Amino acid sequence: MPGKMKNKLIVQKYGGTSIANTKKIKNVAGRIIEYTRRGNKVVAVVSAMGDTTDELVSLAKNINPEASEREMDMLLSTGEQISSSLLAMAIHKQGIESISFTGAQVGIITDTDHTQARILKIETDRIKKELTKGKIVIVAGFQGLSTALEITTLGRGGSDLSAVALAVALKADLCEIYTDVEGIFTADPRIISKARKLKYMGFDEMLELSSRGAQVMHTRAVEVAKKFNIPLHVRGSFTKKEGTIIMKDTPSLEEPVVRGITLDENEAKITLCNVLDKPGIAARVFNELASQDVNVDMIVQNVGRRKTTDISFTVPKKKLTKVLKLSRDLAKRLGSGDVIFDDKIAKVSIIGVGMKSHSGVAAKCFSILAKNKINIDMISTSEISISCVVKKEVGKKALKTLHKEFKLDKIKM
Amino acid sequence: MPGKMKNKLIVQKYGGTSIANTKKIKNVAGRIIEYTRRGNKVVAVVSAMGDTTDELVSLAKNINPEASEREMDMLLSTGEQISSSLLAMAIHKQGIESISFTGAQVGIITDTDHTQARILKIETDRIKKELTKGKIVIVAGFQGLSTALEITTLGRGGSDLSAVALAVALKADLCEIYTDVEGIFTADPRIISKARKLKYMGFDEMLELSSRGAQVMHTRAVEVAKKFNIPLHVRGSFTKKEGTIIMKDTPSLEEPVVRGITLDENEAKITLCNVLDKPGIAARVFNELASQDVNVDMIVQNVGRRKTTDISFTVPKKKLTKVLKLSRDLAKRLGSGDVIFDDKIAKVSIIGVGMKSHSGVAAKCFSILAKNKINIDMISTSEISISCVVKKEVGKKALKTLHKEFKLDKIKM
Repeated sequence: MPGKMKNKLIVQKYGGTSIANTKKIKNVAGRIIEYTRRGNKVVAVVSAMGDTTDELVSLAKNINPEASEREMDMLLSTGEQISSSLLAMAIHKQGIESISFTGAQVGIITDTDHTQARILKIETDRIKKELTKGKIVIVAGFQGLSTALEITTLGRGGSDLSAVALAVALKADLCEIYTDVEGIFTADPRIISKARKLKYMGFDEMLELSSRGAQVMHTRAVEVAKKFNIPLHVRGSFTKKEGTIIMKDTPSLEEPVVRGITLDENEAKITLCNVLDKPGIAARVFNELASQDVNVDMIVQNVGRRKTTDISFTVPKKKLTKVLKLSRDLAKRLGSGDVIFDDKIAKVSIIGVGMKSHSGVAAKCFSILAKNKINIDMISTSEISISCVVKKEVGKKALKTLHKEFKLDKIKM
Repeated sequence: MPGKMKNKLIVQKYGGTSIANTKKIKNVAGRIIEYTRRGNKVVAVVSAMGDTTDELVSLAKNINPEASEREMDMLLSTGEQISSSLLAMAIHKQGIESISFTGAQVGIITDTDHTQARILKIETDRIKKELTKGKIVIVAGFQGLSTALEITTLGRGGSDLSAVALAVALKADLCEIYTDVEGIFTADPRIISKARKLKYMGFDEMLELSSRGAQVMHTRAVEVAKKFNIPLHVRGSFTKKEGTIIMKDTPSLEEPVVRGITLDENEAKITLCNVLDKPGIAARVFNELASQDVNVDMIVQNVGRRKTTDISFTVPKKKLTKVLKLSRDLAKRLGSGDVIFDDKIAKVSIIGVGMKSHSGVAAKCFSILAKNKINIDMISTSEISISCVVKKEVGKKALKTLHKEFKLDKIKM
């Protein structure tokens, strides 16, 4: 479909690996120009080149490990400014008009929450003016201008968000997300060699996949695309092959029940033992963690024995030290028992909108794991996903087994 | 004097070598804080770290050797944004409040002449507000915001200019220029080991020195300082020693006649032979060169023989190819003779306001050179300077001889 696009307005986003060096920037320039030759107008959003952001972060850490978020935004926003101007130069080199803009210049207005600002609105006048002149517009992703006239950044996956938000504001016909993988796969192809690229995927499935560990796209960008019903084409920047189109209603009548499996090895499990089993205790525990900005994922409360219960939950591994300290404080105040943890876990999740109308998917999942002698430590389910925590050493095996048994290596769409 | 400054408003400028790495940035932070502990308010203007600008230029050249000036400005302005945010972080680390700004954010408004924009005005509200809050304000040098809302840069020596212009706009008590040399010397200390640091220097002398090859400060910044009578303290960033104060009226009653000698090896000489010796020809030659943005320095027209004359002039060596082509075109149209050039020349200049009221300085200069068997190829003089073009291989010898004979190694102020 997009290969034959004509006279459309297309917003494209190129990630850091797609523009990691000058040669790749030239390639991207060529790709963009191809689109405009067919009468399309293109707005390209770029991330920082390759490791630029990491290098800037390490400079800052060397100077002040607790640098203010306002100054971090000043610093990090330069990465995208550099790549956007270089891409405009590469396009000029081929004789085509182009102009680069910072987030502030194109009027991406955000709140004042530095390092994770939310986009409030986009003033599209300047972009539209340049598009009308026939120019290719390059926008530095990941950044905006706050209502206090400060430079802000949008947090992880921020450039995806810039692209989707621009697509919404400009009423673009399509938003393409170029990345270093060729689309959305049934599982991580680096682990499952037989993983298949999906042609279509629903917004909700993509949201589940992202929040269950697939790192192709960040949830916030998918949420905005879903809200404004902007189809996203996730595709590889080093290939002409089509990738995966993420959209509201996928065109197939009969969907496979399970469409993707993820493995997340970045979580740790914490258990509060012998917590008094009375109403309000769990709420208190998780309110306290939320107030400290800790994102708890799975929560399991064991059946109480006598008058106490055990509460287990998972958190990102890098927050483990902080959460353990908080939890031990809390346990002391609640008069409960030990706080134990396990950072050698893996979370395997199966995802698919088809599950909603098919019973028995969970049972099948558990019995596949049981048959393969994989012990399940925690379980949580949603309408379109089932997640199981297992020991880390059997995580990959669980992923492979489920991928095979649910026949994802033979999936068609 | 500045070592004892109290309760003053000081604008400081730190060049690229002064903040070349994180360690040096921390040192600069410490130096700035010392000033504020004595009740001073400080606005610090920074260049890009070390070789950052060169690295960005080489990225751009790799992509497009003829990158548009507008995009070059987008690209290069990031260098100063990076160093300004890092410096603010380094100050925070020591528990002192600080805030960094881009040129656009502090309202340095320029014309639209990209890569060499001129400052039109500075809106100081934002800086003043932060100074009132007790914060140290860090400003990214070299850049501004054009009247067309584009990011501009100010050309060579641009950060000096940012600092001086901010000092003017803020009505600062002093403007300090920190650099990798300890002040203004009677000659380049890398060549003349006995060169002496001058304690004071007049604006006009400094302008002559800069335009005659001394690279400590760029002329545009000195011009603005002179126009608004802002004293500049040029000093080393790795020492506590005082440097050179550039000001309107230097405090000494009897000035030494000659105060500085420069050597410029970056020029080439071009001679248009057998040009018709009639009025208006020279004007036509130099108007044409000026219209092509060529900065001609010395001009000598030989005594005419028969009805033609030879016109010689010097231009920066890097413009030689361009100027030769222009000159040969011109010679053809004028019907004059050959165009010859010499790129193995050196220009030695002696500078001092004292010359104005002392006769015989030029004669003494020529006879010193003659006594040392150094042949003079071209001569030009102004009220406070005398320049001689000699063969490149005797340039350093001429510099040393003049430095010694004019007793600059024994100068007191």
